[in-house]
Amino acid sequence: MKTEKLWGKRLAKAPAALAEIFTSGKDVRGTLPADERLVPYDILGSRTHVLMLAKQKILPKKEARALIQGLRTLEKIWQRGEFRLDPSKEDVHSNIESWLIAKYGLEIGGCLHTARSRNDQIALDMRLYLRDCALNFFSELTSFIKALLDHAQKERSTIFPGYTHHQPAQITTLGHVWLSFAESLNRDKQRFQEWHERFNQNPLGSMTGYSTSFAIDRNFTSRLLGFDKPCPNSLDPIQNRWEPEAEMGFAIAAMMNHLSSLAQTLILFSTGEFGVFKLDDAYCTGSSMMPQKRNPDPLEIIKAKAASAQGLLASLLSIGRSLFLGYNRDTQWTKYWIMDLVDECLPVPKIMAEIIGSLRINKDKMTVLCQKGFITAPDFVERLVQEWGLPFRQAKVTVENAVKYSEAEGGEQISSSALERSLQEEGLSLKVEQGFMAMAQDPKFIVSRRKAIGGTSFEALGRNITSLTRSLQGSRRWLAQKRKQQSMAKTRLAEMEQDI
Amino acid sequence: MKTEKLWGKRLAKAPAALAEIFTSGKDVRGTLPADERLVPYDILGSRTHVLMLAKQKILPKKEARALIQGLRTLEKIWQRGEFRLDPSKEDVHSNIESWLIAKYGLEIGGCLHTARSRNDQIALDMRLYLRDCALNFFSELTSFIKALLDHAQKERSTIFPGYTHHQPAQITTLGHVWLSFAESLNRDKQRFQEWHERFNQNPLGSMTGYSTSFAIDRNFTSRLLGFDKPCPNSLDPIQNRWEPEAEMGFAIAAMMNHLSSLAQTLILFSTGEFGVFKLDDAYCTGSSMMPQKRNPDPLEIIKAKAASAQGLLASLLSIGRSLFLGYNRDTQWTKYWIMDLVDECLPVPKIMAEIIGSLRINKDKMTVLCQKGFITAPDFVERLVQEWGLPFRQAKVTVENAVKYSEAEGGEQISSSALERSLQEEGLSLKVEQGFMAMAQDPKFIVSRRKAIGGTSFEALGRNITSLTRSLQGSRRWLAQKRKQQSMAKTRLAEMEQDI
Amino acid sequence: MKTEKLWGKRLAKAPAALAEIFTSGKDVRGTLPADERLVPYDILGSRTHVLMLAKQKILPKKEARALIQGLRTLEKIWQRGEFRLDPSKEDVHSNIESWLIAKYGLEIGGCLHTARSRNDQIALDMRLYLRDCALNFFSELTSFIKALLDHAQKERSTIFPGYTHHQPAQITTLGHVWLSFAESLNRDKQRFQEWHERFNQNPLGSMTGYSTSFAIDRNFTSRLLGFDKPCPNSLDPIQNRWEPEAEMGFAIAAMMNHLSSLAQTLILFSTGEFGVFKLDDAYCTGSSMMPQKRNPDPLEIIKAKAASAQGLLASLLSIGRSLFLGYNRDTQWTKYWIMDLVDECLPVPKIMAEIIGSLRINKDKMTVLCQKGFITAPDFVERLVQEWGLPFRQAKVTVENAVKYSEAEGGEQISSSALERSLQEEGLSLKVEQGFMAMAQDPKFIVSRRKAIGGTSFEALGRNITSLTRSLQGSRRWLAQKRKQQSMAKTRLAEMEQDI
Amino acid sequence: MKTEKLWGKRLAKAPAALAEIFTSGKDVRGTLPADERLVPYDILGSRTHVLMLAKQKILPKKEARALIQGLRTLEKIWQRGEFRLDPSKEDVHSNIESWLIAKYGLEIGGCLHTARSRNDQIALDMRLYLRDCALNFFSELTSFIKALLDHAQKERSTIFPGYTHHQPAQITTLGHVWLSFAESLNRDKQRFQEWHERFNQNPLGSMTGYSTSFAIDRNFTSRLLGFDKPCPNSLDPIQNRWEPEAEMGFAIAAMMNHLSSLAQTLILFSTGEFGVFKLDDAYCTGSSMMPQKRNPDPLEIIKAKAASAQGLLASLLSIGRSLFLGYNRDTQWTKYWIMDLVDECLPVPKIMAEIIGSLRINKDKMTVLCQKGFITAPDFVERLVQEWGLPFRQAKVTVENAVKYSEAEGGEQISSSALERSLQEEGLSLKVEQGFMAMAQDPKFIVSRRKAIGGTSFEALGRNITSLTRSLQGSRRWLAQKRKQQSMAKTRLAEMEQDI
Repeated sequence: MKTEKLWGKRLAKAPAALAEIFTSGKDVRGTLPADERLVPYDILGSRTHVLMLAKQKILPKKEARALIQGLRTLEKIWQRGEFRLDPSKEDVHSNIESWLIAKYGLEIGGCLHTARSRNDQIALDMRLYLRDCALNFFSELTSFIKALLDHAQKERSTIFPGYTHHQPAQITTLGHVWLSFAESLNRDKQRFQEWHERFNQNPLGSMTGYSTSFAIDRNFTSRLLGFDKPCPNSLDPIQNRWEPEAEMGFAIAAMMNHLSSLAQTLILFSTGEFGVFKLDDAYCTGSSMMPQKRNPDPLEIIKAKAASAQGLLASLLSIGRSLFLGYNRDTQWTKYWIMDLVDECLPVPKIMAEIIGSLRINKDKMTVLCQKGFITAPDFVERLVQEWGLPFRQAKVTVENAVKYSEAEGGEQISSSALERSLQEEGLSLKVEQGFMAMAQDPKFIVSRRKAIGGTSFEALGRNITSLTRSLQGSRRWLAQKRKQQSMAKTRLAEMEQDI
Repeated sequence: MKTEKLWGKRLAKAPAALAEIFTSGKDVRGTLPADERLVPYDILGSRTHVLMLAKQKILPKKEARALIQGLRTLEKIWQRGEFRLDPSKEDVHSNIESWLIAKYGLEIGGCLHTARSRNDQIALDMRLYLRDCALNFFSELTSFIKALLDHAQKERSTIFPGYTHHQPAQITTLGHVWLSFAESLNRDKQRFQEWHERFNQNPLGSMTGYSTSFAIDRNFTSRLLGFDKPCPNSLDPIQNRWEPEAEMGFAIAAMMNHLSSLAQTLILFSTGEFGVFKLDDAYCTGSSMMPQKRNPDPLEIIKAKAASAQGLLASLLSIGRSLFLGYNRDTQWTKYWIMDLVDECLPVPKIMAEIIGSLRINKDKMTVLCQKGFITAPDFVERLVQEWGLPFRQAKVTVENAVKYSEAEGGEQISSSALERSLQEEGLSLKVEQGFMAMAQDPKFIVSRRKAIGGTSFEALGRNITSLTRSLQGSRRWLAQKRKQQSMAKTRLAEMEQDI
Repeated sequence: MKTEKLWGKRLAKAPAALAEIFTSGKDVRGTLPADERLVPYDILGSRTHVLMLAKQKILPKKEARALIQGLRTLEKIWQRGEFRLDPSKEDVHSNIESWLIAKYGLEIGGCLHTARSRNDQIALDMRLYLRDCALNFFSELTSFIKALLDHAQKERSTIFPGYTHHQPAQITTLGHVWLSFAESLNRDKQRFQEWHERFNQNPLGSMTGYSTSFAIDRNFTSRLLGFDKPCPNSLDPIQNRWEPEAEMGFAIAAMMNHLSSLAQTLILFSTGEFGVFKLDDAYCTGSSMMPQKRNPDPLEIIKAKAASAQGLLASLLSIGRSLFLGYNRDTQWTKYWIMDLVDECLPVPKIMAEIIGSLRINKDKMTVLCQKGFITAPDFVERLVQEWGLPFRQAKVTVENAVKYSEAEGGEQISSSALERSLQEEGLSLKVEQGFMAMAQDPKFIVSRRKAIGGTSFEALGRNITSLTRSLQGSRRWLAQKRKQQSMAKTRLAEMEQDI
Repeated sequence: MKTEKLWGKRLAKAPAALAEIFTSGKDVRGTLPADERLVPYDILGSRTHVLMLAKQKILPKKEARALIQGLRTLEKIWQRGEFRLDPSKEDVHSNIESWLIAKYGLEIGGCLHTARSRNDQIALDMRLYLRDCALNFFSELTSFIKALLDHAQKERSTIFPGYTHHQPAQITTLGHVWLSFAESLNRDKQRFQEWHERFNQNPLGSMTGYSTSFAIDRNFTSRLLGFDKPCPNSLDPIQNRWEPEAEMGFAIAAMMNHLSSLAQTLILFSTGEFGVFKLDDAYCTGSSMMPQKRNPDPLEIIKAKAASAQGLLASLLSIGRSLFLGYNRDTQWTKYWIMDLVDECLPVPKIMAEIIGSLRINKDKMTVLCQKGFITAPDFVERLVQEWGLPFRQAKVTVENAVKYSEAEGGEQISSSALERSLQEEGLSLKVEQGFMAMAQDPKFIVSRRKAIGGTSFEALGRNITSLTRSLQGSRRWLAQKRKQQSMAKTRLAEMEQDI
């Protein structure tokens, strides 16, 4: 028995890679020191800072050259996985400075911190890190929405039972359902974009929050770091070292709510009782003890991660309440919370795309459910209003009674006898033809008639797909542009480093 | 003894109107039924809906005319304060429909709900209500930021002790401090604007979430209600009846964090121990038992309201987690939470503006604090680097020791003897002149030298003021335009009502 | 059309009174000023305080007599509903003192506040109020648990499909399910009891938090107010005016989680798809637009109220974080939050009892579900181990394969052919008799065999019922004793008031 | 430059070990896989389970002996740090079972899971783990309260300025302040005890939640695991795998609020402006850039950890809301949250004890503050009432005016001239003697007169110390007894293992 699961035989497939990581969670994997993630950002920031010091003649070229060389050497060591943070040296900033001092002596290494404070150093590192996170979430959502649009296109005419209050409401199409989630994820995407527009500003040069008397050039560093501009007030980014974190926290929490509601929807529709969907074995797990089990664990874990997002956001906001003027060490913890949140939630759109992509759809069961629970009754009311000009309230009362009588007959659709009795009681002498009854309760006919914007007809869904597709094109352009802003800045930095 | 407070004699002024409302809170004032606030929005929505029904020939003109007349009559009754919701009729929608049926009979009143559901009715009402809230918060923030800019302009050169970790850090100016809060509130303002851009879409016509077979014209109603466009998917706004609420909740919570940190900052600076500010009597309260008291209650209450915001946001997000497909009644409660939040927090920028506007600033105490706690030491280090070209780390170590020795001498500024001793120990034979010592610790000189973007010099602050002023101009234009969009839509609606 | 609902015809019954209040929520009902609730507690505290002042000769008997008479008069006015708080007088304390001064002059009315502060006054009022809340929750839970025990007794042998991960797990009995909720609610009950044990201490006499030089007798007031003893440190109850509130908040939130999970369980089992339960019409609502609807709104609202509890607890805890020494006005808001929470959640056990009491149980559907989804497989594994002595892991693998083969045959129970094939593959030459197959998958037989403590057999459930019944008896005794402590204290107070 | 801090010279001492760990946080230290912590508990549970299976003849003695031997071997390997969880094997349970199967073959290793499910296995592991946590928190609090009592005893007569609303309120003693925190921590201690009383029940044998047909003996395993009894319903502990976690989360959050408020109090009193306390260098950190810095970082971090507690509690409660019947995988995440919370918060009482133990107390500054801000005014009012029999309200008004006039004279204590003027205005011809003025504002005299229970006099504080000391004795007894219950159970288990 190698590394087989304790429930291997029931399922035809091994778990998908992401599913395995999801379900084992933090049981068997620890988490990295937070600052490990910041090493490349910290080095990038210091390279830029030193170059600027040299340009501004705050630092002699010779020292600057040595420092830059040291930083680039260290970067390579780190890329080879050979630079480990020494816990006795507090944090990433001290580790790197100490390494430089050890290598080049205090004369040179001791100059790195000129016109600098750990306050603006960590503010910078976090902006760089979070900026990448924002683009990554944006990118993941773009891909998932694309996938949903493809599914929606495919299932544009697939009739599907719609619910409210967990009870049958009205027939719709599966395409309509997928599009509704795509719409909500599209807003989630916007929030990450807005985060980027708001916070892609350079805090470097803020120092302790109170600026510096050195003649630093913050426009220069902003350009070389791919920022839109420097933060216009040095105190603000230091004082508010919870706000970019909390805003991203909210964007993630909102996204997770949509994904968690999608998860809950899939969980219920995948029960034997609903039976509308069947999850692929690769996204199910078995039980250590119950042989029949096909459990939707990855989906349940998405719900847990959504709860995690809410708690971490609560901590982020709590820290930012009632802070006294200037930097407060309390805010250090925001780093751990937002990093945890990103790690937890960034892979969720992808696994959800895989789950939906591999879903088996039981059209027979959908058809059955579209004939149950009097799910056609609301459309029946509309027909009565449209055909015979009844006031809506009267039509509705009529159908309410018709439902009651049909139910007494044992049915789950409206019968013509029940409708006739009900019409009579309302004093309406209208003749109900069999063709009318059939058509009024025909799913395809029903969904095709809802032509208004946002509706379920083929054309209406087409319009929705078109507008979302156009939005996605804009998203891809924006993302490419932002990535280019970063890569060009890095290239320019490397070139200028050559020149000193 | 009329309505005198139990602590009347100590303070020279009666509490300001807003201060009184803040401090008595919900002790002596109850809260309205939630739907009272929605009456005008519900009527507006129904007027527009009926007009559209008539235009689309879904409803005969005669009935439409009667309904519109009824709704406008009811609107006037409500404006006179004579329409009260009847608790036995569930909600605002049922109350209004029942009133129409009572007045015009089922034949006419019973048509109001044609092509409509309470699901889209409440979604619409909440959008209209929240849209106004977003503009109101935006407007309040605009005014408060303007006030802060004026204060910043006035105190652009007023030296002020800057802190980190509640300990003296570096000298700054009061203008720099006000601007830092203005910057953060400017981001808060943006969030309300983004809320408006994202959610000023029309959910009317979504029905139960599954659209309708009536030939409704959603573009028409969107225009007449001042929306940018219809929601493109009928299920989405119904499914997510927590999201506009939660996003506004986050915008409020972030704003409240800034205001609550400002409150905490003012509370501490107004203690006798710090003594930098004195609150106006109109924003203090006394004690029922302690005669000497001048308590900063309104500021403390702002902190409480920030905690309230965080809790209500937690509820809003919790509701939206793991919802099953379609409308869930759980979301009804989001209405109460967001309304409570708006009521609590909308007046906060205004009272904060009043408090700061009436603050007495003790410049003497500021000057004293700018000579204590070795607050000039960081700038001293920079001077050493700049004057004598010491590596930063060495300069810093030198000043660390100089601080230690000066402290041993009983001082709170660096003495020349201490500095000399420290320099010697570092093996540096540098001569310290008295003029250097004085200038290096001169507050005005210190702040004037920080010329970088975001810095504390007169010019740097000027740039910050300019950019924020420009941003405010844009804000005012945007606000005016959005208000006009609404008012023009209302005018157009009234005109078209005349024409049928 | 009187006050008929817009969905009246579908349902056979009007909504139950509590259901109606639940579903209309705060739509059509506002909330009282918070201090309205405190009037009787404030008067009781003041009567006791004045009596003590007289006993200790701090106040002359004549003045004391007048004050007590005044307070009792006011109490009667309030009981007749004729005392309304005047918003211009801040709070309940000022309102009452002002009333006394207006009636008896400053000479007498002005003595009420001797040896007193609003800080200890509100701390006292809240203890008295919350103490009653704790007993009320305890009492409501006691009744609901009793009802669950009765249901459990009745359904002790009713087989029921058990789930994990929303998927069929093992057969159990409905009695077992009810008992599991009873167990968890029993812990909720304990928490309210512990609250009472911890906080039934008298804060009166704490003054501003720093005690008094008057020779007050705190043991005397404690006895007359039904407290166990005075708070042993005057600063503690004033400093922590969030802690009794937050602890009750947690007790409520935990209880609401149990009730909300019960609600979710009932909602799913009441869908047509599960079909195991049918809610009574009196606890359903219809739709304004969909004629067929029977929605489980009161249950959904319980879920919303649970989210409310979590948010309000978050606010309560947030307020108590990082407070400076002594009273902080921030804590005033804890009053509103806990009162809102109590109002929202106190009626929940009762409506849940009504819903379960009126539930229709579909035993046929239960039986069907006990034959589906291979729900008997885990017990089948145990049979294999017991009958043939297979190692558990091998038995499980065998059944896993048997499930897979049976599923391929189109069944949802294990077939003997599938089992035989699977046994063969494992190299086990065991003979499967038909009687064995039938018995191994017989629900009654299965549940009866689980005889361990906590198990599903008739006897095991009986033991659980017995232990819970015994616990309830203790609860009733404790409750009666605590109520008596209060009523006897009140009687003694009234007697002593006669004597001065 | 070895591992020196970047701010080494300013402070006379290196940071204390705990302070260093606090301030570096998760920057440079990662976190363990969650299940690493559970290895010993999981092994203990399995040893007990196997022994019971043998005793009940469910498992032959031979197999049982082999399994027990294997488990004990593995335990030793783990104790030597040589057992690492293999991430490909999901969790601790699968890792251990796989190890046994690899070592002893499926015949033997495959029997471990007989009458067992991972559901009850993890429920058991977590109870064992959390039970130890509860005792550890209890123990840490006991030690810290003891230290506070010693400080209180020592500072029983040290006068201290009391505050409300951040403003001077009344003079107290430092002993009174320490005792108030001791009182609140004493309640925190109770909550961990109650947790233990409520949850020291054995979930083993619950299986999947639906019990087992094996003749297991749950009383036997309960005794050998040191539990008070088995959980009385098998479904309850599986369904509620968030509740022990959330209740401990609340206990921790409440404790952290007390400690965080103590932290905030120490932070403010340690500013130069208040100047009442001076933190020891070992609990301060410097700055990378500002040479003068002595920052109270460990205290600030305590505030951050309190925010962390609130967020994690929010997640724990969120998970438990609206769960469907039976185990849900969502609850797996509760493990990570509660473990994180325990790791963050368990060391806090200890570091707080160290910080307070090393605090330098500036009695001169305390004396100065006891003469400022009219802090004696409330006691002055009481003197007027007591000496001259003025009604309280009139006395208070008189002193209010006296404060106002004294302030106009430039003082911060009440002058006799101001008092005389005020008395005259009230029409009171009372003669103010100089001795009266002096005594009425003498701090020692003031605190000595407050003799009521909970008050500030020497005797009153003594009573408070006595009652808390008695409570501590009870705590130590209880703790010893619970630890003995565990150790005796372990001994008994080992003995019985020898016997089979």
